[in-house]
Amino acid sequence: MKVVIIGGVAGGMSAATRFRRLDENAEIVVLEKGPYVSFANCGLPYYISGEISDRSQLVVQTPEKLRQRFNLDVRPNHEVLQILPAEHEVVVSHAGQRLHESYDKLILSPGAEPIMPDLPGVTAADNVYALRNIPDLNRIMDGIQTKSVQHVLVVGGGFIGLEVAENLKLSGLAVTVVEQAPHVLPPLDTEMAAFVRAELKRNGVDVIAGHALASLASNGQTAILTDGTRLQTDLTIMAVGVRPASRLAQTAGLKLGLNAGIVVDEHYQTSDPDIYAVGDAIVVKQQLTGQPALIPLASPANRQGRQVADNLAGLNHPNRGSLGTAIVRVFQLAAAATGFSEYQADQLGLTYQVVHVRGESHAGYFPGGTPMTLKLVFNPKTGQIYGAQGVGEQGVDKRIDILATAIKGGLTIEDLPELELTYAPPFGSAKDPVNMLGYAAMNVAEGISHTIQWYELPAALAAGRQLLDVRDPDELPAGQFKDSLNIPLNQLRERLSELDVQQPYVVSCFSGQRSYIAERLLRQRGFNVVNLDGAFALYHAIRPQDLV
Amino acid sequence: MKVVIIGGVAGGMSAATRFRRLDENAEIVVLEKGPYVSFANCGLPYYISGEISDRSQLVVQTPEKLRQRFNLDVRPNHEVLQILPAEHEVVVSHAGQRLHESYDKLILSPGAEPIMPDLPGVTAADNVYALRNIPDLNRIMDGIQTKSVQHVLVVGGGFIGLEVAENLKLSGLAVTVVEQAPHVLPPLDTEMAAFVRAELKRNGVDVIAGHALASLASNGQTAILTDGTRLQTDLTIMAVGVRPASRLAQTAGLKLGLNAGIVVDEHYQTSDPDIYAVGDAIVVKQQLTGQPALIPLASPANRQGRQVADNLAGLNHPNRGSLGTAIVRVFQLAAAATGFSEYQADQLGLTYQVVHVRGESHAGYFPGGTPMTLKLVFNPKTGQIYGAQGVGEQGVDKRIDILATAIKGGLTIEDLPELELTYAPPFGSAKDPVNMLGYAAMNVAEGISHTIQWYELPAALAAGRQLLDVRDPDELPAGQFKDSLNIPLNQLRERLSELDVQQPYVVSCFSGQRSYIAERLLRQRGFNVVNLDGAFALYHAIRPQDLV
Ligand SMILES: Cc1cc2nc3c(=O)[nH]c(=O)nc-3n(C[C@H](O)[C@H](O)[C@H](O)COP(=O)(O)OP(=O)(O)OC[C@H]3O[C@@H](n4cnc5c(N)ncnc54)[C@H](O)[C@@H]3O)c2cc1C
Ligand SMILES: Cc1cc2nc3c(=O)[nH]c(=O)nc-3n(C[C@H](O)[C@H](O)[C@H](O)COP(=O)(O)OP(=O)(O)OC[C@H]3O[C@@H](n4cnc5c(N)ncnc54)[C@H](O)[C@@H]3O)c2cc1C
Ligand SMILES: CC(C)(COP(=O)(O)OP(=O)(O)OC[C@H]1O[C@@H](n2cnc3c(N)ncnc32)[C@H](O)[C@@H]1OP(=O)(O)O)[C@@H](O)C(=O)NCCC(=O)NCCS
Ligand SMILES: CC(C)(COP(=O)(O)OP(=O)(O)OC[C@H]1O[C@@H](n2cnc3c(N)ncnc32)[C@H](O)[C@@H]1OP(=O)(O)O)[C@@H](O)C(=O)NCCC(=O)NCCS
Repeated sequence: MKVVIIGGVAGGMSAATRFRRLDENAEIVVLEKGPYVSFANCGLPYYISGEISDRSQLVVQTPEKLRQRFNLDVRPNHEVLQILPAEHEVVVSHAGQRLHESYDKLILSPGAEPIMPDLPGVTAADNVYALRNIPDLNRIMDGIQTKSVQHVLVVGGGFIGLEVAENLKLSGLAVTVVEQAPHVLPPLDTEMAAFVRAELKRNGVDVIAGHALASLASNGQTAILTDGTRLQTDLTIMAVGVRPASRLAQTAGLKLGLNAGIVVDEHYQTSDPDIYAVGDAIVVKQQLTGQPALIPLASPANRQGRQVADNLAGLNHPNRGSLGTAIVRVFQLAAAATGFSEYQADQLGLTYQVVHVRGESHAGYFPGGTPMTLKLVFNPKTGQIYGAQGVGEQGVDKRIDILATAIKGGLTIEDLPELELTYAPPFGSAKDPVNMLGYAAMNVAEGISHTIQWYELPAALAAGRQLLDVRDPDELPAGQFKDSLNIPLNQLRERLSELDVQQPYVVSCFSGQRSYIAERLLRQRGFNVVNLDGAFALYHAIRPQDLV
Repeated sequence: MKVVIIGGVAGGMSAATRFRRLDENAEIVVLEKGPYVSFANCGLPYYISGEISDRSQLVVQTPEKLRQRFNLDVRPNHEVLQILPAEHEVVVSHAGQRLHESYDKLILSPGAEPIMPDLPGVTAADNVYALRNIPDLNRIMDGIQTKSVQHVLVVGGGFIGLEVAENLKLSGLAVTVVEQAPHVLPPLDTEMAAFVRAELKRNGVDVIAGHALASLASNGQTAILTDGTRLQTDLTIMAVGVRPASRLAQTAGLKLGLNAGIVVDEHYQTSDPDIYAVGDAIVVKQQLTGQPALIPLASPANRQGRQVADNLAGLNHPNRGSLGTAIVRVFQLAAAATGFSEYQADQLGLTYQVVHVRGESHAGYFPGGTPMTLKLVFNPKTGQIYGAQGVGEQGVDKRIDILATAIKGGLTIEDLPELELTYAPPFGSAKDPVNMLGYAAMNVAEGISHTIQWYELPAALAAGRQLLDVRDPDELPAGQFKDSLNIPLNQLRERLSELDVQQPYVVSCFSGQRSYIAERLLRQRGFNVVNLDGAFALYHAIRPQDLV
């Protein structure tokens, strides 16, 4: 059997190596249009700052080593121009020549392409870049060195945009991020992204959210935003997202779906039975809804590459879909998400509730821990977990991984308190923040706690609820809700007469934990009361201007 | 309703606070024999070295604060001497007085007691201690200061023994650990514990495994081991395990089970319908087998405390059993386990297989990562995961937490590659070590790879297998298997003629990954070949003396 693979990185090379392990006799040809194969796309941003200092570290494998170890015929600088399904051939451009290569089975893993917005002045500009591969990186590094760059504009505040912005800043440049959505990191919800924005600000990165790039002028030296703002930029990075690299597939007549992603069945077979596809280029099944989705991440791409090899070799390992778990480091902070955000749950019309919990990366009594904020989106009726988000300095990756595992396993909110996680003081807490999310979610689901979200507060106050703040007096200088009443939790029982049982209340504290305790106390004493989920800490992150 | 709780720490105080949140009107009395309630037992060892520097950090709550916040009647220095089930009373000793306290419902959370082995010379010695609570800690600290201690003997190399040994060593003392089992950390298997032993040695802690303490002499200044070895010891810590503190329950006629643990039903009800019990003192259901077990850990104790309150308040939250997940820091190393070890699987007569994987805490191309070794015990027929273990400097807690979550969720080895874990270079890898465990396990389960374990190697060699080492020449000086043949993996295809297809082989490399690739190559070329699971790195950790 002769297998030809288009694209020699995450999905493509994983397919090649696995197929070789399963079939020592097959002929395996990997065609890669770029000069490198098997490189660490995900590491590229860190070369900008020098955190990854040696370019060779970015190259995981070379054609020569892949030949020796796996007997792979790996051909960089070979771009496939056309697929001829009827002839079982691909047309390849190499060193100015056009070659034909035959195949029995063809695997496409061409990845995704950075979107270059078709805006006035973009084509004319000579300082606009995108980052997908090592040549792109080289161009950016050259640009920085040769253009005496001081001001950089990063268009797009998603995962890659923020990584690039962080590393540009770390290398000493002045960086502005423009994000069209109302906040950076759109896969996170507003209030969670607010922590990221604060960290960007703390580190001197300017963020303009809610406005898009409208055009470039003066050879790209001036960026004009949709609201008319003009920014000076010596170098502009476009990081407004990617789209499936499906042009080849399209001209070959293969079926395309969502956003022109390649449609495959659960064995990665395209509409042509001898052509398979994996990675960023394909439409996957979102695991929670079964709906089509594009999830351009390395973990699924690697897995799919291995699975398509399995299926070709006769092992039945179907694609079970993707969840989408992502993380980004933004200076000291980590921000991560898995499954659906609240915004997405809303868009999908799901019945959902939300809880926020503030926890420590490890036991509070042991030195070195740092706080984190976790958010859970779940179905209060069935307990199904729809998604989770986390921000904090340490241990956010761990918590989101646990929750991603819980979602994959179909665990419900009732199972979260049951998780027995590694606990010794340097590593965790007897009740891990993940357990705590489960407790808080169950309290909401079982009607033990009635919460409102930060965005519901203004309406609740307008409707006549009084805000009761149960923090201690020494915490108040950090900020207070306007017209709030303060009774520290530990004095609440004895000062109950200061409250009016006819008056509806919303209780707040710092994290939402003490106000929950106050809520329980008050409800049982006949009060109409709700807890402000996430309380002051969350509200302060997103709407500090509302506080006095 | 009047609820009396015996024991004011993890299980007991969690029951008290939760019950108050559910029932504002109940009378809740917490009786604690010691001077402190709600303290961090798990933090005690770290006070010895000063890593936790302030004793007050160990006290999470005080009776006064618990009264203010939760209206709890918390009584330290109140020891319950007797339960009178018929009278619904307990007999309490306080300040030299005997008091009677009535209850409607009684909750026992008396914890466990350190086992004091009844050996000659132990009672006579004035320098023998155990560590369970703050008074114990005070005695140890006093002992260290007043007895001009230089040599300390820690009897028992389990989790608590090693924590104490580490902190004693960090405080500048000469420490010897004696462990009766063949290796330290008996919940881990031999080869995984070998990494811990090496770390102890590297940090100057002496370890004597496979021999027990037989007696003490000269007022405790001399320890005599079962093999006759005599050790000088200025201070001896007994850490040979704990047993359920069930004497009270026993004299009250409550049903006891395994090792005199208190027997409860799934609602934590003892054999007396008005007496409930939780925490270290009860017999739980091991989740994987449903068999009775003692799992004296803080996470289950806290959870059970909350659940018993739920059940008393009419919320039906049954005890679903425990898994047992534990971790310990030993200097730079973390060692963790969840579920069953290979040894336990063996004892239980389970059908199991094992894989070891060596991974990096985050992407290899990003600076700062460290290696870890993970072990998975699973059923190759059903794919059920029985247990996992990990050792390494960073990220071991995360991986064992993911696996503990997977086990709780009933995920199989086939699900592990499907886990989509947070991946960006500072946090993980596109194929996380946990995914890799799944791949390796599936290869074994599907017959793609045939492995032998380190302890099977001598027999395999004796039976005529030739060891083929596929490492590169520059790796060989670190150690080689006797009489092994070396052909680097990348030269294997072209040097195949140096091998004899009639000769059975066992292949090894550094981690087992390259030898797996070699195994696949050779098997398809007609060789009888097995892979040495974990390969050189594992073997070197456990049997360096076999290597040349
Ligand atoms: C800067 C950056 C940072 C990232 N960070 C992360 C991260 O932190 N975490 C994460 O999970 N994911 C991250 N990703 C995404 C991740 O790299 C991709 O999901 C993954 O590489 C997709 O694998 P793939 O095989 O589908 O495509 P790719 O790895 O992109 O490989 C596709 C290859 O196909 C080649 N190709 C395309 N068309 C042709 C043709 N016609 N002929 C020949 N060759 C062709 C391309 O040149 C390319 O090399 C990042 C991506 C980038 C660019
Ligand atoms: C040094 C040390 C380190 C540990 N490290 C860890 C760790 O890292 N991770 C982990 O998961 N677990 C750890 N543990 C175990 C953990 O502390 C226990 O599992 C947990 O505290 C059990 O909770 P409990 O409520 O059952 O018992 P405890 O927390 O022990 O509370 C029982 C209380 O009951 C009181 N009591 C007993 N009898 C009576 C009586 N007759 N009258 C009145 N009061 C009574 C006792 O004085 C005691 O204070 C550690 C324990 C110790 C001692
Ligand atoms: C690296 C790359 C070439 C794939 O190579 P690979 O050999 O398939 O993958 P890995 O090196 O991860 O090794 C995985 C194999 O080793 C096996 N393995 C790992 N450790 C093992 C051990 N201790 N014992 C036995 N087998 C082991 C796994 O089971 C797996 O084999 P299988 O697929 O046959 O089950 C490809 O993923 C690639 O090009 N990656 C770089 C690009 C990239 O991923 N970019 C996006 C992210 S930055
Ligand atoms: C601390 C201790 C007194 C228990 O107090 P507690 O109030 O029940 O527990 P926590 O402080 O952990 O808070 C948990 C509660 O806050 C709630 N909560 C936490 N964060 C919240 C948030 N942001 N919003 C709403 N509720 C929140 C939880 O849901 C839970 O309430 P619930 O049980 O009614 O669902 C008890 O565990 C103890 O004594 N611990 C120290 C001893 C010990 O554990 N030793 C062994 C380990 S070292």
